[in-house]
Amino acid sequence: MNKKQLFEQIKIKKSFLCVGLDPVMENIPKHLLKYDNPVLEFNKQIIDATKDLCVAYKPNTAFFESMGLKGWETLIKTWEYIPTDIFTIADAKRGDIGNTSAMYADAFFNQEKSGMSFDAITVAPYMGKDSVGPFLNYKDKWVILLALTSNAGHSDFQLHQTPEGKLYEEVIRISSQWADSDQLMYVVGATRGAEFENIRRLAPDNFLLVPGVGAQGGSLADVCQYGLNSECGLLVNSARGIIYASNGEDFAERAREEALKLQQEMEQILVSASLV
Amino acid sequence: MNKKQLFEQIKIKKSFLCVGLDPVMENIPKHLLKYDNPVLEFNKQIIDATKDLCVAYKPNTAFFESMGLKGWETLIKTWEYIPTDIFTIADAKRGDIGNTSAMYADAFFNQEKSGMSFDAITVAPYMGKDSVGPFLNYKDKWVILLALTSNAGHSDFQLHQTPEGKLYEEVIRISSQWADSDQLMYVVGATRGAEFENIRRLAPDNFLLVPGVGAQGGSLADVCQYGLNSECGLLVNSARGIIYASNGEDFAERAREEALKLQQEMEQILVSASLV
Repeated sequence: MNKKQLFEQIKIKKSFLCVGLDPVMENIPKHLLKYDNPVLEFNKQIIDATKDLCVAYKPNTAFFESMGLKGWETLIKTWEYIPTDIFTIADAKRGDIGNTSAMYADAFFNQEKSGMSFDAITVAPYMGKDSVGPFLNYKDKWVILLALTSNAGHSDFQLHQTPEGKLYEEVIRISSQWADSDQLMYVVGATRGAEFENIRRLAPDNFLLVPGVGAQGGSLADVCQYGLNSECGLLVNSARGIIYASNGEDFAERAREEALKLQQEMEQILVSASLV
Repeated sequence: MNKKQLFEQIKIKKSFLCVGLDPVMENIPKHLLKYDNPVLEFNKQIIDATKDLCVAYKPNTAFFESMGLKGWETLIKTWEYIPTDIFTIADAKRGDIGNTSAMYADAFFNQEKSGMSFDAITVAPYMGKDSVGPFLNYKDKWVILLALTSNAGHSDFQLHQTPEGKLYEEVIRISSQWADSDQLMYVVGATRGAEFENIRRLAPDNFLLVPGVGAQGGSLADVCQYGLNSECGLLVNSARGIIYASNGEDFAERAREEALKLQQEMEQILVSASLV
């Protein structure tokens, strides 16, 4: 999916919501345990309940890998189940030397080889340009580079001062020479509200993937105040706040309610900004 | 496997060789294509041919993931096939916020959940302490943190100056407060010969995992001149130079010859340093 198509979907749905699919066996509602693959059934029902309210799904690969071979199969089948007009993000945080990153690109972008073809993958910047390049060889596929993350450990290295600016600023400045905003997004945690103005200065046209709204404490209004641009430019992720709103038989209904609240808040913001 | 046991294996085998298992379908010898799982058969024969010459195997997960579900199954079965007295490294370059890194720890360390229990995993440092912590909760399991990598892109961020030193130096300095040398190793590319002296100053006791000897151009002698410490302190990886020494029917024999050359060179070095 290209940038124009993504913005179209945002306008159609009046939403820039990304639903994070982070299934944990312990949180799967009991009544689903009768299915051969309860996690897949859970994901399918979450997708059915939220697909008209969000523009993206983001399975975090760690949650699937933790369940071994069955988990990897569930990841593939979950990807297959997502409607084709919804943007798909493999939240995999990969990155390796060039010839190895090419293998990761096959894993997440090359359906013929791996069974999956996500629109985007999250990538860690530490290994530099050649660790990112192989993903950019796929037309209309995206790299979402970690810039300023939502966790406590963000301050260990990302805020380090260098002669040109903080490390995360350098990641944005340097990587923006590798690809333009049609293929490159950045991860910026919602808990970093005050830094959004600065980030928009460095990356005026790039979409930002914003985790941390909800369970991690970030505010949607704060994010949008500086994060919104003329093509929306934001994908705001919520995972736990939606998918675990209930662990009873009403889990899908409650997930829909939580997603709807966020969509309605986003619609207000888009209307106020004259984007829809 | 703990540090003492690893050093014991190094002394028994007179080797600090790690064999990288990076299988590519196109390079699998033709005569193996008759097997139900040619890649697994390839890995098994490589392991059989080299297991008395090396102390570690390092499957790079990208190469398995690129083959989809069958690839993940091959990764599990390859791990199962490695003899238990050999150190196993999941070269996965993972790293995420704390609760997600805990899932990656399950994926690679918790056999009951995922079917695999490697001794070590490679981790990217960008997200800081809480992205590393969950791996350290497993007794006698290791994090191998990316410090100074062997690829061209190492210079994009790893050499950035900060007030305290270069970024890779900061990664070593700060992370060494998170765990001691019984659970923490660093990745340092063999192509960074001149920096080994500096790295040993920062991390005198840690094992270093050193890729880049062979195909990538690094020299074993250069690495050992400054990298060796009183418990050896080095695991030197070779992948392509060994596993693709031939793609004919003699591939395993030729792989053994290449591994033997490295083992013999390592034995000389260990003898000269009075470590065996």
